[in-house]
Amino acid sequence: MLWWDSCPVELCELGRKSMLIGPNAPISFESKYRASHMAHVYDFYKPDLASEYPVVDGKLSQTCYLMALDSCYRQYCAKYEKLVGEQFSISDADYCVFHSPYNKLVQKSFARLYFNDFMRNCSSVDNDAKEKLQPFANLTSEESYQSRDLEKGSQQLAKHLYDIKVQPSTLLPKQIGNMYTASLYAALASVIYNKHASLSGQRIVMFSYGSGLTSTMFSFKLNEGQHPFSLTNIASVLDVTAKLESRHVTSPEKFIDTLKLMEHRYGAKDFETSKDISLLPPGTFYLTKVDSMYRRFYEKKTDGIVDGKIKCSNGIANGH
Amino acid sequence: MLWWDSCPVELCELGRKSMLIGPNAPISFESKYRASHMAHVYDFYKPDLASEYPVVDGKLSQTCYLMALDSCYRQYCAKYEKLVGEQFSISDADYCVFHSPYNKLVQKSFARLYFNDFMRNCSSVDNDAKEKLQPFANLTSEESYQSRDLEKGSQQLAKHLYDIKVQPSTLLPKQIGNMYTASLYAALASVIYNKHASLSGQRIVMFSYGSGLTSTMFSFKLNEGQHPFSLTNIASVLDVTAKLESRHVTSPEKFIDTLKLMEHRYGAKDFETSKDISLLPPGTFYLTKVDSMYRRFYEKKTDGIVDGKIKCSNGIANGH
Repeated sequence: MLWWDSCPVELCELGRKSMLIGPNAPISFESKYRASHMAHVYDFYKPDLASEYPVVDGKLSQTCYLMALDSCYRQYCAKYEKLVGEQFSISDADYCVFHSPYNKLVQKSFARLYFNDFMRNCSSVDNDAKEKLQPFANLTSEESYQSRDLEKGSQQLAKHLYDIKVQPSTLLPKQIGNMYTASLYAALASVIYNKHASLSGQRIVMFSYGSGLTSTMFSFKLNEGQHPFSLTNIASVLDVTAKLESRHVTSPEKFIDTLKLMEHRYGAKDFETSKDISLLPPGTFYLTKVDSMYRRFYEKKTDGIVDGKIKCSNGIANGH
Repeated sequence: MLWWDSCPVELCELGRKSMLIGPNAPISFESKYRASHMAHVYDFYKPDLASEYPVVDGKLSQTCYLMALDSCYRQYCAKYEKLVGEQFSISDADYCVFHSPYNKLVQKSFARLYFNDFMRNCSSVDNDAKEKLQPFANLTSEESYQSRDLEKGSQQLAKHLYDIKVQPSTLLPKQIGNMYTASLYAALASVIYNKHASLSGQRIVMFSYGSGLTSTMFSFKLNEGQHPFSLTNIASVLDVTAKLESRHVTSPEKFIDTLKLMEHRYGAKDFETSKDISLLPPGTFYLTKVDSMYRRFYEKKTDGIVDGKIKCSNGIANGH
């Protein structure tokens, strides 16, 4: 049972993505190193179809994520080493971008890659760190996932690399919260937005994860590309800062009321939605009612039309 | 909202399919004529996630099906005529195979193609039939979908062609009932099973339909092919008669009890299934329990193992 994207529209807003695939791209996949891992596990799933909420086994979910990360990284390194003839380590990744349900797990994940490098005796781990990680060298995998000392120690030792290789990807995931499927691409967008001027020739390693579970590590190389498909233009269109600033501040009470309303209406029929659409940007399609046969009706917010063109608060007619 | 395959395992059993796609196939697609039609309609859908059952607007559903059929057939004919330079009519199809929720709709559908041919002045419609259909020539499309007289008349006039071009496809759909997605392929399997010895060089036109709706008309040409991928061998492996005969007869009361049990357990947790697995063929995987976390547990029926090989009632270890 796999868990796909599903989250409140408001929280996902900034996480939506579209991809253009073609030649001479500023982002070129290194498909030959791609590594996947799958397992049948009940870590995070949605068995109760009448409820909006999933069932989560938090501890299992976290261990599954790290096991999948280990497995993908091992395969990715093996493929790289076979094809390139040199050892791969996190030194060869300029940025590491993770599926980001919450930032703490991203920190643990990068530390886990660092621990993998230690176990593989990579030069990315300096002598001081090697000495400090030595006490954990003989743990079984299972023990290593449970060890709080290893978790804390490796995070501290990897901190200087985390700040360089991971921190730039955490802007949107931290600001928006869990976007499920979109979180990996929101993290990538954060790197491009933050670092576009210096990305040419660099490698980004991506780690995707879907509970249930299926997981892939893949990478790409970046180059500036040509307008309009250049990194500079992508960063400019992303316009992350302005979009984050255009968010509406809501009181916790109102937010909770909204969640309650969604929970109540999940799978329901025979209701009309609120008439207050003042917070929606022009061009937005919105649900007006669900009738007694569960048929759904939508309108499009049309105000803000100037000379036949839709004018949005962020300057883009996004049409969702 | 599209409706995909979902039906009781027992009823679908014979409808399962797998496809092997490769060169020198006995069934070769005529992709260039393929025609599709989509529309946003609430004809048959599943909005109540807590219920096993869909919501059906029967009258709308039937009209949508016929409208999609008209639209696909018009496009299919236009493509054929553009590429081949000759008019297409049902005379050019040796068999017409329809998505088959129930046989009455299949009869109506073929009659509808015949009426289309009449409106397009095709030679597939003889002079006597042309005269009898003339009173319906000026109906609007909407009127033509509602006219009981047209429906009855065109079915009678198309009857002799229906018996030749459609009847051979109705064996499994009639014997098994609605298989949803699988129904189109069960109908195709019926033609191959019934007519494999005379199919070489012939054309089968297929009409697929999924509520919501999306629909495609496509065709292929047949040739005997080489063992093991020959029509003769496919018909032999299908072994339809023996499979139909190996079904178990159940009293209506027991059947209703089984449906009630399924309805009660749909989306439920914390139950164990019946210990009676005597009706399952060896090699079958079956659900034994769903625990309090909704986790599902399966066993495989292993009796009937002889010398390490699974022996099934129909001679095939199908592993489902």
